Amino acid sequence: MGTDAANVRAAAALLDNLAAAGVREVCISPGSRSAPLALIAGSHPGLQHYVITDERDAAFFALGIAKRAGRPAAVLCTSGTAAANFAPAVAEASLGRVPLIVMTADRPTELRDAGAAQTIRQPGLFASHVCWSVDAAVPEESWPLERYFGTLACRAVAAARRCRAPVHINVPFREPLWSDAALERVPRGKISGPRVDYSHAATGIDDATVRRLASRLLACERGLLVCGPGTADENDLDAFVDLARALGWPLLLDPLSGMRFGALHAADGASVVVDAYDVLLRSETFAAAHRPDLVLRFGAPLTSKVLVRFLADQSAASQIAAWPGGMWADPDFVVSDVIECDPMPLVTALGADLLGSGAPKASTSAARARRSQPKDEARSWLESWADGQTAVRASLSRSVLGAGQAFEGAIASTIVDSLPEGSTLFVGNSLPVRAVDTFAAATDRRIRVLANRGANGIDGVTATALGAASVSDAPFVLFTGDLSFLHDVGALQIAHRHRLSLTIVIANNDGGGIFSFLQRPAKAGLFEELFATPHGIELGRAVEMCGGRHRAVSVFSDLASTLASALRDGGLQVVEIATDRERTVRLHQECVDLALADADRALGKPR
Amino acid sequence: MGTDAANVRAAAALLDNLAAAGVREVCISPGSRSAPLALIAGSHPGLQHYVITDERDAAFFALGIAKRAGRPAAVLCTSGTAAANFAPAVAEASLGRVPLIVMTADRPTELRDAGAAQTIRQPGLFASHVCWSVDAAVPEESWPLERYFGTLACRAVAAARRCRAPVHINVPFREPLWSDAALERVPRGKISGPRVDYSHAATGIDDATVRRLASRLLACERGLLVCGPGTADENDLDAFVDLARALGWPLLLDPLSGMRFGALHAADGASVVVDAYDVLLRSETFAAAHRPDLVLRFGAPLTSKVLVRFLADQSAASQIAAWPGGMWADPDFVVSDVIECDPMPLVTALGADLLGSGAPKASTSAARARRSQPKDEARSWLESWADGQTAVRASLSRSVLGAGQAFEGAIASTIVDSLPEGSTLFVGNSLPVRAVDTFAAATDRRIRVLANRGANGIDGVTATALGAASVSDAPFVLFTGDLSFLHDVGALQIAHRHRLSLTIVIANNDGGGIFSFLQRPAKAGLFEELFATPHGIELGRAVEMCGGRHRAVSVFSDLASTLASALRDGGLQVVEIATDRERTVRLHQECVDLALADADRALGKPR
Repeated sequence: MGTDAANVRAAAALLDNLAAAGVREVCISPGSRSAPLALIAGSHPGLQHYVITDERDAAFFALGIAKRAGRPAAVLCTSGTAAANFAPAVAEASLGRVPLIVMTADRPTELRDAGAAQTIRQPGLFASHVCWSVDAAVPEESWPLERYFGTLACRAVAAARRCRAPVHINVPFREPLWSDAALERVPRGKISGPRVDYSHAATGIDDATVRRLASRLLACERGLLVCGPGTADENDLDAFVDLARALGWPLLLDPLSGMRFGALHAADGASVVVDAYDVLLRSETFAAAHRPDLVLRFGAPLTSKVLVRFLADQSAASQIAAWPGGMWADPDFVVSDVIECDPMPLVTALGADLLGSGAPKASTSAARARRSQPKDEARSWLESWADGQTAVRASLSRSVLGAGQAFEGAIASTIVDSLPEGSTLFVGNSLPVRAVDTFAAATDRRIRVLANRGANGIDGVTATALGAASVSDAPFVLFTGDLSFLHDVGALQIAHRHRLSLTIVIANNDGGGIFSFLQRPAKAGLFEELFATPHGIELGRAVEMCGGRHRAVSVFSDLASTLASALRDGGLQVVEIATDRERTVRLHQECVDLALADADRALGKPR
Repeated sequence: MGTDAANVRAAAALLDNLAAAGVREVCISPGSRSAPLALIAGSHPGLQHYVITDERDAAFFALGIAKRAGRPAAVLCTSGTAAANFAPAVAEASLGRVPLIVMTADRPTELRDAGAAQTIRQPGLFASHVCWSVDAAVPEESWPLERYFGTLACRAVAAARRCRAPVHINVPFREPLWSDAALERVPRGKISGPRVDYSHAATGIDDATVRRLASRLLACERGLLVCGPGTADENDLDAFVDLARALGWPLLLDPLSGMRFGALHAADGASVVVDAYDVLLRSETFAAAHRPDLVLRFGAPLTSKVLVRFLADQSAASQIAAWPGGMWADPDFVVSDVIECDPMPLVTALGADLLGSGAPKASTSAARARRSQPKDEARSWLESWADGQTAVRASLSRSVLGAGQAFEGAIASTIVDSLPEGSTLFVGNSLPVRAVDTFAAATDRRIRVLANRGANGIDGVTATALGAASVSDAPFVLFTGDLSFLHDVGALQIAHRHRLSLTIVIANNDGGGIFSFLQRPAKAGLFEELFATPHGIELGRAVEMCGGRHRAVSVFSDLASTLASALRDGGLQVVEIATDRERTVRLHQECVDLALADADRALGKPR
């Protein structure tokens, strides 16, 4: 099977999930390019279809359904001016606040703007009259089609409902478009629920949602609480720790979760917090032995690629994400449920339900029984994570500083250890933030950690840190690389002009260190010129030009004291420490290997 | 004073309101075109400003402030590539979910794409990386600048907070840009609150908001509850009536509010419901004597131009709108407070607070006292509206049907009178929907009324009605004009192909009747050809082609029985009744004049 099968599978995943998410009617204007979708929709047990020749009327007809029935209706047409005929009804739906799922078939990417017939510029065709628009990937059998198209459908319905507006899914199909054989192979309408179950909490998290979720969590021994960037802040920590304790689950804290640094300040924080996942899960043995049945996810995309990959592999687990409306932080499409809400109200409500505060609830006694008499398996799940965590952190703490050599991991760990309660650490992309994740352990001192992780750029890092420092009274450190620093060197003028206090720690590896961890071309020269980009520039001059003080740390063990002096002096302070790209890779690997061996020993020990 | 004063007033309104809405910092990259904004921002007591030469860094700096402080920060630059330098930080803010107010000064409209210096294509520059973008009107002294720019600022901050994303305000300025004299005349930072006070209820309506609002409503004798299109549905009526009764206020119901037809079904509905506002408020005497102190508004833009104009004149009144996030239904910019929420939870919560159900509350006793012993002034406010309402409805009921002539008002009234409980009426634009508003009185029979009022087009009306009819089991009537019917004549095929039941009543005035109510050019020929557009087409053929039955009503008094027959027969039924454009205008005016005279007499009578 080839493209025909891929097209039909994509269409089935899309339409199955529209139906499962609550769409009941599809209005179809006939055409050739849209055949995979039309053929599935026309014989789907969960969908009523209306064939309407004129696309303008098909869209208005769908609008009428949605208006009267109060649920999104779908409309489908082929490529070309057909799609443009949807525009009047889309505008009316947008301004009239009516949810519509607008599907347009399209030529595949390579045939656009190339003289192909019936090919107009469809992506973005409805401009701001749709609240979400996606130009879907061209279906091919080389990637997980069903997850992607199923998720698209669920997200589209959720967006249309949330915004009470039309959404546009432009679906390109490559030829051969379909075949009877492909159609026969695709089971339709057999799914019992949507690919992603959206619980709408636009007007607050209702009791029923909380009760249902609490029951699901309680029923599950092998669970994980995973907090990504921006989940919460220091004041919210206790609620998360209480929830983790009540469930007997580890609490994985991204360095940007807002809670890792300060986590040990919480009563019982140490018993549930896991921050060593980035090392632990590199062990195939550990990962295989610690597959969760349920993951409750919060926050933006995770910093740790290791953790991301681990979660991507847990396709059998229920993965429930509590995300504010419109957030999507799962490029692997493994999330199975989304509760559209802010994290804190949900965690507070779950805690109240599980821990029995507030009105008596069905699950309260179970939660209580569980807290007072933890089952053996529950203990071993959490304890096993905790033992691994302890072993890795002890090992890293010995090896990283024991080596006495400057590399990004050691610098990250030293900076975090040096920062006083209440300070802020801004971390650059990409090596610094990863180094903090892997090497900086949870603290009892509350340290706010910020980074530009929306688009992960190395541009504007210094300016952003200066802005953040301008509204902070406490010590403020930016940990960044030389490439990022040079890219934004002009930003130092801001500190000069506005007399701002910022201490910058630069790990100077004379180029882009992150690339040494990634795939390299065989020709070393190419790698150096195009990726590593060594520059040989002295950074101190720029600092001095802007009235700052520059200090170079030549012996790693001096870093802590130099940083302390810089923080004491205030103003613009730059502490530069040289690292070596190759050495960083080697030391990083050695420390991780040692930690994994120590963890294996610890976990192998009889308890 | 001229353009310089307009520019400075616009800038002051914008920045004053950014400050009042919670913005504390403005990062300014210097330039000429942005001078009005920069000069105000640079000396504003409520704003800290940072001058940063490089726009890229200014935007990243603002991002840092917003990230660390958790509130939107503003950034401002001049026109040209300056604006494009904001793009990297805007992308990061969008994906990192950070609120930013991005302001770019621009050339006025006539200088764009015309070879003017520093003029790139700024509107829409940040594409989907901003959650709201507006290319503002060019400031001139001929229109209410402050309301517009003040509202823009408040909406921008609300959108940035709601979506946790950047918003873009592109502000064009015409030369002369500013003057010292203009600057001196503008008081800055003196406003006590924002132009529009946004209460954020994204996560539900909190008790404090409800309590505060309840107190404001209770304190006000002369209040109005105004329900625009889509406010609620039949099941919600009691809650609105109870609220109106508790407050002693009239309840104005748009025909598309979801509640007018069925309103008399509610206990006490008749004592508070006002549906004759479109006539009553044409009386300058009545309007002057019934100026409200507070208006609580729900729903989409109102159908009645008379009511819209009346509300627009109440600039001294507090006008509080309860709108779902992002809705704006006030092109006159008179709304003073927005509570972002769905209407029903708010009305229910207000009712619980005012009527004392639920936990004891401070305002409950006051509400009770008021209900049991209404003050004299409160009685006369509501009674005065009710007396006017009764007089108008009685008068119209006599005159409209008494005339025995076909015009849109009489047809609207006859259709609504003929429809049984549970049926649906779809109303076309523009004359039919206005006729229903003016001439169709509230009923005890619950009738769902729908229309395409998002963009108010005459296109696609039949197709939309057919879609709505396809998900309705009860009788379904479309009331439309001949022009709208002909525009979408192809849609009749949908009824044929899918065997749908729809009864269409066409008021055939051989052209566009609405235009006879609007401004006409002196040359009659021009008016007929370009606006009235008479066609002379026989509509019956198209109906028969699609398997429907066409009936022409030649005597107006036969309309009700013919409609009843059509509804009994089912399938596609078209009932056509000829009207005359000039006669419609005349009869409409006569009925309204008579009703106003009757209302004057009734209100003049001693009570």
